[in-house]
Formats: sequence, structure tokens, C-alpha cells
Amino acid sequence: RCVSAATPTEEMNGAGNLMDFLDEPFPDVGTYEDFHTIDWLREKSRDTDRHRKITSKSKESIWELIKSLLDAWSGWVVMLLIGLLSGTLAGVIDLAVDWMTDLKEGVCLSAFWYSHEQCCWTSNETTFDDRDKCPQWQKWAELMTGHAEGAGAYVLNYFLYVLWALLFSFLAVSLVRVFAPYACGSGIPEIKTILSGFIIRGYLGKWTLLIKTVTLVLAVSSGLSLGKEGPLVHVACCCGNLFCSLFSKYSKNEGKRREVLSAAAAAGVSVAFGAPIGGVLFSLEEVSYYFPLKTLWRSFFAALVAAFTLRSINPFGNSRLVLFYVEYHTPWYMAELVPFILLGVFGGLWGTLFIRANIAWCRRRKTTQLGKYPVLEVIAVTGITAVLAYPNPYTRRSTSELISELFNDCGALESSQLCDYINNPNMSRPVDDIPDRPAGPGVYNALWQLALALIFKIVITIFTFGMKIPSGLFIPSMAVGAIAGRIVGIAVEQMAYHHHDWIIFKNWCRPGADCVTPGLYAMVGAAACLGGVTRMTVSLVVIMFELTGGLEYIVPLMAAAVTSKWVADAFGKEGIYESHIQLNGYPYLDVRDEFTHRTLATDVMRPRRNDPPLAVLTQDSTTVEDVETLIKDTDYNGFPVVVSRESERLIGFVQRRDLTLAIKNARQKQDGVVSSSVVYFTEDAPQLPASNPQPLKLRRILNLSPFTVTDHTPMETVVDIFRKLGLRQCLVTRSGRLLGIITKKDVLRHMAQMMNQDPESIMFN
Amino acid sequence: RCVSAATPTEEMNGAGNLMDFLDEPFPDVGTYEDFHTIDWLREKSRDTDRHRKITSKSKESIWELIKSLLDAWSGWVVMLLIGLLSGTLAGVIDLAVDWMTDLKEGVCLSAFWYSHEQCCWTSNETTFDDRDKCPQWQKWAELMTGHAEGAGAYVLNYFLYVLWALLFSFLAVSLVRVFAPYACGSGIPEIKTILSGFIIRGYLGKWTLLIKTVTLVLAVSSGLSLGKEGPLVHVACCCGNLFCSLFSKYSKNEGKRREVLSAAAAAGVSVAFGAPIGGVLFSLEEVSYYFPLKTLWRSFFAALVAAFTLRSINPFGNSRLVLFYVEYHTPWYMAELVPFILLGVFGGLWGTLFIRANIAWCRRRKTTQLGKYPVLEVIAVTGITAVLAYPNPYTRRSTSELISELFNDCGALESSQLCDYINNPNMSRPVDDIPDRPAGPGVYNALWQLALALIFKIVITIFTFGMKIPSGLFIPSMAVGAIAGRIVGIAVEQMAYHHHDWIIFKNWCRPGADCVTPGLYAMVGAAACLGGVTRMTVSLVVIMFELTGGLEYIVPLMAAAVTSKWVADAFGKEGIYESHIQLNGYPYLDVRDEFTHRTLATDVMRPRRNDPPLAVLTQDSTTVEDVETLIKDTDYNGFPVVVSRESERLIGFVQRRDLTLAIKNARQKQDGVVSSSVVYFTEDAPQLPASNPQPLKLRRILNLSPFTVTDHTPMETVVDIFRKLGLRQCLVTRSGRLLGIITKKDVLRHMAQMMNQDPESIMFN
Repeated sequence: RCVSAATPTEEMNGAGNLMDFLDEPFPDVGTYEDFHTIDWLREKSRDTDRHRKITSKSKESIWELIKSLLDAWSGWVVMLLIGLLSGTLAGVIDLAVDWMTDLKEGVCLSAFWYSHEQCCWTSNETTFDDRDKCPQWQKWAELMTGHAEGAGAYVLNYFLYVLWALLFSFLAVSLVRVFAPYACGSGIPEIKTILSGFIIRGYLGKWTLLIKTVTLVLAVSSGLSLGKEGPLVHVACCCGNLFCSLFSKYSKNEGKRREVLSAAAAAGVSVAFGAPIGGVLFSLEEVSYYFPLKTLWRSFFAALVAAFTLRSINPFGNSRLVLFYVEYHTPWYMAELVPFILLGVFGGLWGTLFIRANIAWCRRRKTTQLGKYPVLEVIAVTGITAVLAYPNPYTRRSTSELISELFNDCGALESSQLCDYINNPNMSRPVDDIPDRPAGPGVYNALWQLALALIFKIVITIFTFGMKIPSGLFIPSMAVGAIAGRIVGIAVEQMAYHHHDWIIFKNWCRPGADCVTPGLYAMVGAAACLGGVTRMTVSLVVIMFELTGGLEYIVPLMAAAVTSKWVADAFGKEGIYESHIQLNGYPYLDVRDEFTHRTLATDVMRPRRNDPPLAVLTQDSTTVEDVETLIKDTDYNGFPVVVSRESERLIGFVQRRDLTLAIKNARQKQDGVVSSSVVYFTEDAPQLPASNPQPLKLRRILNLSPFTVTDHTPMETVVDIFRKLGLRQCLVTRSGRLLGIITKKDVLRHMAQMMNQDPESIMFN
Repeated sequence: RCVSAATPTEEMNGAGNLMDFLDEPFPDVGTYEDFHTIDWLREKSRDTDRHRKITSKSKESIWELIKSLLDAWSGWVVMLLIGLLSGTLAGVIDLAVDWMTDLKEGVCLSAFWYSHEQCCWTSNETTFDDRDKCPQWQKWAELMTGHAEGAGAYVLNYFLYVLWALLFSFLAVSLVRVFAPYACGSGIPEIKTILSGFIIRGYLGKWTLLIKTVTLVLAVSSGLSLGKEGPLVHVACCCGNLFCSLFSKYSKNEGKRREVLSAAAAAGVSVAFGAPIGGVLFSLEEVSYYFPLKTLWRSFFAALVAAFTLRSINPFGNSRLVLFYVEYHTPWYMAELVPFILLGVFGGLWGTLFIRANIAWCRRRKTTQLGKYPVLEVIAVTGITAVLAYPNPYTRRSTSELISELFNDCGALESSQLCDYINNPNMSRPVDDIPDRPAGPGVYNALWQLALALIFKIVITIFTFGMKIPSGLFIPSMAVGAIAGRIVGIAVEQMAYHHHDWIIFKNWCRPGADCVTPGLYAMVGAAACLGGVTRMTVSLVVIMFELTGGLEYIVPLMAAAVTSKWVADAFGKEGIYESHIQLNGYPYLDVRDEFTHRTLATDVMRPRRNDPPLAVLTQDSTTVEDVETLIKDTDYNGFPVVVSRESERLIGFVQRRDLTLAIKNARQKQDGVVSSSVVYFTEDAPQLPASNPQPLKLRRILNLSPFTVTDHTPMETVVDIFRKLGLRQCLVTRSGRLLGIITKKDVLRHMAQMMNQDPESIMFN
């Protein structure tokens, strides 16, 4: 019906009329199929049409004006809601993880839902020296047998620790398997792909949101070597998707929806680290594909609301946004840049090692029998992790507590083993300013345990990331770096203490001064390792300084981050997320890859030399039956329309989906349209004698402005156009004649060919 | 010579061969004329060619390998140099401004090159209470007459203050007039235009760098209501341009050069405020046009090196990067958001007022006699400023000192008039935690003076910005906001003190508590006013918190910034920079303007309905003479090449500049090329009988991949393509036939028409 109602004036408006057509209640028109790529230009054009319509209507009545204002403000409302929900979820997750992590060791008698810290916090019997010991908190062995000490109690506690860990991880993997398979992994590779314009239905659904939140708590509590940061980004994006469905502006436009998702990703990082600015930069640098300035501003708003909500919930009990707040009392010195840069090198090497080993293992999982037993795999890895982790105090506790301890400077009151320095009894300084001291036995003991923890973390993380449970990478990477950094820091500190006269220390480290802060080394090491794995740059530095509140330490962080990136890039350009995208074969066109080969559009377009000719429609000589045959015989997403097969002059492009729906609709509702009806894409169908079947006019679904390049266009330009304009396909012409078509997948395939298998592809040309 | 040397294989390579051609030593080939727009795609393609050549050569010898490595690292070297030079220049400017500002009031007897602070700092006779009084520092009256006090001394000091101010500003405007006219203004509108792809030769030259640096010192010292932040961005960009000339990679490619300039802009803001992250975001949000991720990373590096260099020079003597370091002792409360939002409204209104009034005044300057006497104008404004500023202690001192005082919290030892509160004699608290107190007579006095200063600053800044001296806007805008904010802050504080029982204060402000920090209000007000004028968002908030070190106050800052932007945007979308760009008529295609009109490419393209037909060349039937006539008769920048005038099928596009040079070269060097020679753009010229003149083969300068759209393409898509791909022109076709051409200027003209004069342009269609 709507198809035949076209008037010439309306037909003049090009892409505009696509919209009018789509307003008709055809199911699914204008949407995309699962695992297909969206057309950014088309989405943008649809949104402009919608906006235009609302603006012109708003002049008609007060009610329409209010509606138009609501529409204009809906973006901010969505941001507010995303911030509130993701902040709340992050708070709940933090509280639950705290409680369940402690549940592996014992229980609070006064109230079983208290974590260890909360339990002793509310107790009056806690002394200042032993803040984490109070009668209300009982370890399992003590509760069950009455004995808190001894070998029997140790074994029982050990056994229950492993048992709880296995229970948590079994629950997590089962829930993922049964209810939401998309809830596994960190989610960032998939979100990157989705933001670049790919459709994965259900990946950001309500079910995924629910299951990911629950299983994330379980997975983190089980003590596996994984973090909650990546999954929190996924959770925030699910929230974003959820709130998109409240407004047709976002739910019906895949382009606009992705703007919201970019902002949601920023909110996710913001709550993961309490770092709103770092979150925005992470979204900009690492996750998003299109990031217009409007999105920058909105992301910042969402990230801020989320961080503020989280602070109001106050899960860490210190009313700080900051996860690992540190305060160092000494500045850093130029000479220290040498160990910082060495930590950067370590971070780069670890990044390379981790990515290669993890990808190799994941490929093995995909291709061998291993992938068929995900539950068993998770159970096995959890068992090994728990059994190995318990004996070492640095791996037994949660990884974020470990990082927090490693980052901290040793004050006078610090009771940690790491701060067991031999104090000078004559020391009469204020508490804050403690000079360098010789290390005591506790420090040497801690060094050994840290070294073992380092090896353990390095190995187990490789096997953990990529299992079928929610798993983030930030915290384990940072832990590896923080351990290495602290070890280096203590080494430098002791060297400076014992060898004040060495030329490298002479200038800046007098005896009795506080020169070296091992905690700062841990921080720098953490940044280096995180940088090596993810290849983040500015956002990494900003997250680190927001995480620790140390604006003064940008230069050391930056030096380590730059070095780590350079070292890691020397072994392979791709970070862990890009590697996983490639492993899973997602059609992701990376903005960062520079395409520098000398190929032309003609080398990439289809049909190739010996292929059958391009499937085209003609503007006024194809019958409905021909079209239906073409649709049945091919699986292309669309067909170019030409003036005639002889002239091959292009007039437009029609989407397969629209064509199918239009013909189906016409056959049902429009009288006289039969198989032998001629399909017209021209402005006016000729007046035919009554004996001929009724023609079918389809100009309305024809895209009159298809994107074209000439066959001589260098592929670097074509790649640039695909990236910047977000095209789905592009037609290739020579002197006005249609020659072929290049789709996004052709571009990706060509790029892969040119990058990895250079000799073969050159022979191929 | 090079033109005839084309072999078929080389000719296959499309845009690639343009490069080979340009390698020939023709003067100026591949460059652009002054006040022309660059073609980003072409620049990018040229850079890829260069890169490809270096990579393939690097396999030949060790020396070539080293050269290729140097080439790869040259970007980082340029960043390092920019950071070092702009940091140094900023330090020198700061020191010189400090000294010369104080010179207006007096001189240091122990060493005349000391500023007031340095003078008393080195003196042993300075007491803690009167830090700025020491015998070495003498006011002019004291030095000349021996009397420090009394009416005579006051008048003499007043007179000399005005005289010095007039001298400084006369020197500044004369230097600008005589040596570097481009050194005037803030420079940011022009840099935005240049970064968007426009050529303004000399704008970033060495001469401009030198003169701008010197005159900036003079202008700021003269006490005019202007800041050094915008000009510092210009200075940093000049540094960037200077170092570009060291590497052919950057000096010969206008696209790559702009990447360096984006980073330099970040370094400029970084040293202006000591805010490296804010600088990068400012460059991203406000200044840059294309900001790939690589540039983000490099900008950060440059910004950090610059800030670090500045800190090493340490012009403020406090070894902080931060210009206005503040430390507040109380948090803010939810109820305070109301006055913060009101400050946001004030900021938005001030922004609107300032932009409208300033633009109106600048337009008047452009169009009337006023513009002919720039020196006189500067002298007059300086005279008025100095005469009015001296009597008021808040306007007499430099604006940054004023802002610093307004931002600061009143401690117990503060001697400022603003901190003249009536202390409770029983107070026995530590110094840091002072409860709210009633205001003393000094505060009321200060309030009057501040109110007068506010009116003075508001009026005089409108007339100052845009004069022919370097002038930044950040500091005056912040001063206006800080004054307003402090006034509001004191009002709220006194209200809370006297009316603890009011319902709005009851919940959070008990008697004897320190509830309200007036300094925070000043900070929020400054952010609001700066936001209203520039419409910065994220970068504004980040700069403010880097400026003050207050990570905790993001929410108040953000609330004020959002409100101010919304209020200001309601009156007009354009910030001060965009308004000045428009006033000067630069061809700037703003990324932020959404084009939502329903026009099509066919409505915008030339030739219009009644124009003469499009000037085209044919591929094999135009003679050299025809081409020369066409070049002489038209002023188009390039010509489409078609198969024949009848078929109008497009095969390529040739630049006017290349055509002129190629024909000139051929006539000089190639035998047999005469006026009647036929120009061939085809792959092979036919074998002509010897009697015919030698043909001229010009396929090499033909761009075989010109950008085309169909006539039905909506203009919103065309605008998007121009923006994202940085095109210079785009050809319009219908079913393969060439119809017309759209240039960047056509797009801009059309957008202006549609936005400002909607009814007329609709009638026109």
C-alpha cells in the first residue's frame, strides 16, 4: 500500500523517503539481522529524518513541543539512569565479593552477612594493633572444632577454602552455561566489535546483565586469578542497552544506540576504578569506534554519576572514590627513572608473553576436545588455584587487597610483614617521615613469598582468562606488575641504604634520608604490566593516577607506560582485546592499523576475474519472478540497480531485506502484482495496456545515493572511507560504469591477507 | 621530462604515481597556495607512499635501515623538542611578566631584575607577618622623593603606574604592527582554522613566534584585562611548526604537519595552566580537527615534557606544576549545588553577553574608521584600564594573583582583607579547622571593591579582546567568575552563620562548624564563566581540577559547567572562537554543527540552473591551447576530465596547479609540444602521423580516484563526508554522468544560508 502511494514530490527526497516507508508497520523493516554489520551513514540519515520530523511537528502544538523537548533531553536521562544503575550494581558487587571472599575463611558470628572487616569494625573488642582479630570473627576450624591453631585446624581451613572456591566457581560456570552463554569472558572484545557496528543479539540483554552480575561475584569470590573490571564494563553496557529500550530514539537506531553504549563503557570503567576521567579516556581510546564530542561530554556525565553513586554506597567504607589510595611522603628522583624504565621493559615482555600464551591456549580450547568440557575446565583451574594459593599469604587473600598492600608506603604503624624493617631506636622523627632502614627478616621472607606469588600469578592467569566465566584482566595484570615492582623497589631501597656512597645514589640519597618508596615502584610496575597487555596509553596513566590520587607521579607512570608499549609493540601490534577479536573472527576494522600496501580497489572488488558477473537489477526490465529467483539463488545483502545491462550505469542500491519485505507486502496487499509484474525503480512507470500485469514500483526502497569509488582508488583510501564513514558496502565504477562491489568483509579479508601472508597474496595479484 | 617517462605499469598505480611526479624538482609542486584548503586524503596518500618507499628501501642497506628508524622516531623527537622549547618559553614569559608587572609599582634595590616577591624573599629583613614589605623593595615615589606615604606619593605612584602601562602596551602594539601582524589576538580561532586544513602562510612562522613571545610579556605586564593562555597555545604551535621544518616527513606534508600542531596546542595549554591532561583534552575537544589515537598519545607526551620543563624552571618558586594550588578543609554539601548552579547560570549569561558584545565591537572595528588606528586604540584602552584599575587593590595587581587570592581558603594566618573575620577569642582549635565566623569590616569593604572590580572587568574585557596585541581570554573570564563566585560564597557563608536554624542549613551546618568555603565558590564561578565563553566541557573540568589539585570537587565544577553551557547554548550555539572564525570568514567546517536540512547534493552543486556549463576537459580531444585558455578564463582549483563532452562520463580530476606546472614544464623541456598539441589523459596516446604535433601525455597528474556522490545524496551525508574525509571538492554524478561539482566553500556557503536565513533559502530552492 505505502509503496504505491508515492507521489513525485516525495520521491524527490532521496534517502528521506526510506524513512516514510519504514514508518509503516512492517515487522523488522530497517533493522539488521543477527551477526550483520550496520550501515552508519544510513542510521545517521534515519536519525536526522526523525529529528527533522519532531522539530517540524513541535511547532504545531504545545504537546508536540513538550514531546520534542523530552526527546532532546532523553540522552541525558539515559546517561543519568546508566550512571545510577551501574554505580549501584558495582556497589552491590563490591559488597558481595567482600563478604563471599571472607566466607572462604570464616564467618562472622554476630551477623553472618558481615565481611571480616565489617565484623571486627563493629566489634568493641578490637584493639588497634590487631585490627583484623576479634572474637566475633571465627575461622571455620575454630567454629567447627573449637581449635583455632594447630595442624588439624590448618588442614580443615585449607580444605574448606578449596571447597568454597570450587563451589563458587561451579555455580558461576553452571549459571553461565545454562542461562546466558554470552556472560562469559571480559566482554570487552565483543563490545569493541559491537561498537564498531556489528550486531550480536542478546549480548547486551537483560538476561546477560543479571547472570553476569551474579556470576561475576561468584567468580571473583572463588579466588581465581581474575578481576571484575572488564566484566563491569560489560555490565554497564547491558545497563545502557536496557535503558535504550525506553526511548525509541535509541532503541530503533543502531547508530544512536552505540553512542549510548560508548558512554556506558566509560561508566563501567569509572565504577571499576573510581576513575571517571580515566573511564572516559578508556572508552575513547580503547573501546569506542565513533566518539563524537557530544558523546565525550555525555560519557563524562554518566561516568561521574556512576562514580558518585558508588561513593554514596561507599562499599570500601572509606568514603573515597579511589580504590588504592596512596600517599607517599617523598618525591621521586631522576635516577629512579632507570628502574622505572626497566619495569616498563618487564611489563612489555609480560604483555607479549601473556598475549601469545593466552591466545595459543584459547586456540587450543577452540580447536580441541578441551572446549567441550568448560565446567570441568573451570573446576580444575579453580582447584589448582585454590590449592596453590592457600599456603602463600600473598595469594590467599583477594588480589585487590594484595595490590593495595603492595602500593602502600610503610608507615611507622604498619603491621604488615612487608614493613618489618629494623628501626633505629633513637629515631625521634614525626611518624610520617621515616628514613630508609635496613630490611628485617620479615621483609626477606616476604620477598620469597612474593617471588613465588609472581610465578604463580603469571602462569595461572594465562589459563584463567578466556574460560567460560566472567573474567577481567586488569587486576591480575596489575598484580603481576605490582609484585615485580615491589621486589625491585625493595632491592633499590636496600641498595641505596647500604651503599650511600655509590655514585648513582650519592647525589640524591644522603644517609638517614627517606629516598626510595617501594610502593611507588609497585604502582609503576602495575601500570607497565597493564599497559603491556592492553596497550592503553593515556587512559592507563590517567586511571593509575586517579586510582592512587598521585598527580605528582605522572612522569614515572608515563615513562613505564611508554616503554612497556614500545617493547610490547616491537613483538606484535595487537593488544589482548584485538587478539581475541581476531581469534574469534569478528569483523572488526581497527582504527589503529595503518594500511600501507599498494593495492587498488579493482584488486579487492568482487566479482573477481573468473567469477560469474555481478548480480544486478535493472531499473525497468526485471520481473517480480526474476527478483525472487535472484534472492533465492544468492546470499548477498543487497543488489545494485543499473539503467540497463548493456550500459551498466548505476542508479542505486537496494537492500536484500527491504526487497524481500516489499515484494512480500505487495503480493499480499496490492492487487494485480503477480510473478510476471515488472519491477520499476524509475520515477514514473509507463502507462501499460490493461492486459499487462500491474507494475510494482519500488523506487521508495531504492537508495539513490550509494557510495561509489573508481577502480583506481588506492585501497588505503578505501579502507579509510570504510572506517571513517562506517560503510557496509561500496560500489566500484570506471568512467561511470558499474564494475563490482566491495563489502566490509572483503576489506577485512584483504587486510588480513596483506598483513599476514604477504608473499602469497602478492603472488595472487 | 618526467611526464613522458611514464611506463604502463607505473601508470596503473593511481594516486601512487602522483608521488613519483612530485619527486621531480619542480618548485612548489604538491604544495598549496596561501589561503587555500588542503586535501586530507591526498596528503594521507602521499605520506603512505613516502612511508612505503622508506620501508622498501630499508631492506637494502644498514644505512637505509637506520634512516627508516630515524624517520619512525622523528615524531617523538619533534614532540620532545616542542615540549622543551614551549616549556622554556613559558617559564621565561612567566618570569618576565612577574618582573615587569611589579616594575609598574616599584623596583628592587638589591637587584633591579628581581620581582617584588623575589626581592623580599631573598631579603633577611622580611617578617612573617608582612611578607611583601621589605626595605629592598621601594615604590617609585619612595625612591624618587623619599616619601613612601601621603597624597603626593600616591599621585606620583599612580602617574608612574599609568605611564609604565602605556609604555608597555605602546611597545607591544608597535612591535606587532611593524614586525608580525599575525602575532595579535589569541590565535586560537586561526589555529582551529589551520588545523581544519586551511593554509595561512607565516601565521606560525619564526618571526611570529619571536614577536608574539615578546609582545605577550609586554601586553600582560601592561595590566590590560587579558591573559597569556591563548597566546601560549599560538606560541607552542609556532614551536611545532618550527621543528616540523627539521624533518621532511612533516615539513612536506600538510596533513602530517597538522598532527604535530595538534600536539603542540596541547603542550601550549599544558604550560599555560600546568595541566598536561587538560591540555590534551583541550586540544582534542576545542582546537583539533582530526585527532587520531596516535596524536593523542604524542600530545600527551609533548604536554608532559612541556609541563616538566616548566616545573624545572620553577617560575612560581613553589615547585608545583599547579598555578592556583588550593587545599580546602571541608567537603561540599548537596544543598550547595543550588548556589553552584546559580553560578553556572551567571557564567552562561556572562558568556552570551561577552560573545555578543565583543563580536559587535569587533565588527564595528572591522567596518568603521576605528580599525585604522590600532595603536591609538590600544593606548586609549590601556590608559582607561590603568587609570581605573589603580585605585582598586583588586584590579591593581595582576589578574592571576587576584584569582589565586579569591580561590584561597582563609586560614588563621591569612593577612588578606578578604579574611578579616571576627575571631572567637576562645577558639582553641588547630589552625586548619576554623569554624564559620562573622565577617569583619574588611570583608564588607572587600565585597564593595570586588563588586566594582567585577563591573570593571566585565566591561573592559569586551573592549580588550580583539585588539592588535596578543590577548588571551581564559584569565579575564576566570577572574570575572571568581569575583562573582567569591561574593556569592561569602554571602552564603554569612547566611549560614547567622541563620543556622533555617531549614536549608539545618541539616548540614551546625553552629561552630566550618560549613561553607567561599574559595570553592570562586573556583566554581571561574569554571562557569570560562565555560560560558569557550563552551569547553570535559577539558574545562579537567583543567580546573589540575589547576587547583582538587579531585574531590569534580561534581560542583561539573554542575556549574553543564549549567553554564546549557544556558549559553540556549542563546547561541557558538563559543567565542567559532564566533571569531565566522567574523573573519575563515572556511571552517565545524564538527559540532549538526546539519539537519532536507537539501540534496543537486541543490548545492555548481553549475546552478542558469549558469554556464561546467568547465571540463576531455580525455583525448583538448589541445594545449584550449587548456591554457581554460586556465586563464576561470579561477577554479581543478577540472574534471571526462571521456567526451557527449557522454559526460567521468574519468578523473586534475588540479589547476599541477596542470599549469606540467604544461609550463613540457613547453620548456619537451620538444614538439606546441599550442596545438593534443593533451591525452588516456593510458596510451595513439600513434599519430609525424606531421601532427607531439601529443602531451598528462595521465600522471590525473587523479584517477576523484570523490563522487550522486545528485540524490542528502546534503547531511555530503557534509559528513567533507568533514570526516577532509575533502576539498566532490563531483556530482547521476547514473554515471557528470553533473557538477561541490567544493568545501559551496558546502560552507550552503550551511550558512540554511542556518541563518532559513526562509530566504527555502524560497530560493
